[in-house]
Amino acid sequence: MERKQLIEQIFTKGSFLCVGLDTDIKKIPACLLELEDPIFEFNKAIIDHTAPYCVSYKPNLAFYESLGIKGMIAFEKTISYLKENYPNHLIIADAKRGDIGNTSTMYARTFFEEYDVDALTVAPYMGEDSITPFLAYKNKWVVVLALTSNKGSHDFQLMQDQNGTRLFEQLLRKTQEWGNIDNMMYVVGATQGSLFADIRKIVPDHFLLVPGVGAQGGSLQEVCKYGINKDCGLLVNSSRGIIYASSADDFAVVAGEKAKELQEQMKAELDKL
Amino acid sequence: MERKQLIEQIFTKGSFLCVGLDTDIKKIPACLLELEDPIFEFNKAIIDHTAPYCVSYKPNLAFYESLGIKGMIAFEKTISYLKENYPNHLIIADAKRGDIGNTSTMYARTFFEEYDVDALTVAPYMGEDSITPFLAYKNKWVVVLALTSNKGSHDFQLMQDQNGTRLFEQLLRKTQEWGNIDNMMYVVGATQGSLFADIRKIVPDHFLLVPGVGAQGGSLQEVCKYGINKDCGLLVNSSRGIIYASSADDFAVVAGEKAKELQEQMKAELDKL
Repeated sequence: MERKQLIEQIFTKGSFLCVGLDTDIKKIPACLLELEDPIFEFNKAIIDHTAPYCVSYKPNLAFYESLGIKGMIAFEKTISYLKENYPNHLIIADAKRGDIGNTSTMYARTFFEEYDVDALTVAPYMGEDSITPFLAYKNKWVVVLALTSNKGSHDFQLMQDQNGTRLFEQLLRKTQEWGNIDNMMYVVGATQGSLFADIRKIVPDHFLLVPGVGAQGGSLQEVCKYGINKDCGLLVNSSRGIIYASSADDFAVVAGEKAKELQEQMKAELDKL
Repeated sequence: MERKQLIEQIFTKGSFLCVGLDTDIKKIPACLLELEDPIFEFNKAIIDHTAPYCVSYKPNLAFYESLGIKGMIAFEKTISYLKENYPNHLIIADAKRGDIGNTSTMYARTFFEEYDVDALTVAPYMGEDSITPFLAYKNKWVVVLALTSNKGSHDFQLMQDQNGTRLFEQLLRKTQEWGNIDNMMYVVGATQGSLFADIRKIVPDHFLLVPGVGAQGGSLQEVCKYGINKDCGLLVNSSRGIIYASSADDFAVVAGEKAKELQEQMKAELDKL
């Protein structure tokens, strides 16, 4: 998906919501467990009820891989279902891959050819040749970890060099030599508050994928205060706060309501632009 | 596998060789392509011919994932084959995973329960809670990226803080607060030459997983000069130099010969201890 199309979707829908499909067999409603593929059935119902309120879906690979082959079949079916029924939603595979050049090339083939998703999260520790193979694909997005939402994010990402530049800032600068606003986004956790402002100084125009709203404690208003730009420039992810809002038979309906709530708050923020 | 058992295997066999199973459908001999599962058949033949000369196998997940479900079935069959027939070989899943705590927990479940391998490579950018869930498993190993073998390794890993401490050194120090010599190894590329000596100052006793010998230009003698310790403390990986040494029908025999050559060089190094 092109940047232009993504921006159009956001303003048409009044939403920059990404729904995280962190589907855990241990957390889905009991009524689904008798079905042949409970993970896929859960995703399908969640997607059908949330699609009007979001512009993106982000399946988290760890949850599918943890079920082995069966889980990967559910992942593949989920992607196919999205592509057939909701072709205007950006699909982000949250897999945090990254390796030496020839291996990153294989991961790129996996996600951008075999599964044919729109975007992939990538871990940057190994540098240039771990990231550039993903950038060789047209109309695909590389979403590089910059400043993540978790507690451990401060262990290395805030390390300062001799000029006081932090690792995540070095990363934002360096990666811009390899990619651009049309093929690269950054993960910036909603829990990072005013550090968002420092990030926007270096990447004013890039899209930021923002996890951590809801279950991890980040606030949508805070994120918008520091992070929104004229094209919106944000995809805010919510996973647990939407997909597990109800554990009863009405799970999909409640997920839709939660997504709508967030969409309405997002629309209010977009209307201010 | 326990550390003690790994050391015993190394000295019994006179080898600290890890054979990398980076099995690429585009590179395996044509004679295998007619079989039902060419990737698994290739691995099986390579394993049977190299097992006497190595102590570990390292399937690289990217290569299996790139074939979708079919590739993951080949991966699963390879792990089962190893566990049944070569239970004394350490199996390292080279997957470079790492995410926020609850997601790393799912990856740990994937590799240490579902596939039940002995070790997993982990990417450290996200810090403590991205690594500690893997350390909760008994007799399993977390292999953390420290100083990798690729060109891009210098982009971020050599960044210096205000005291001149480099990122990979900070990482070696910090991660020792979370794991120990019985459950944690580090990836240190064979291409890093004398930087090995700096690493051994911080982690004198840890096992180091060393890729980059052969195709990537690293030298075994150089690695041993700076990296070997009284328990050996090294697992040196070779992938392409062994598994693709011949592309003809004799591929497995030639792979065995190449593995034997490396094993003999390794034995000479162990004999010096």
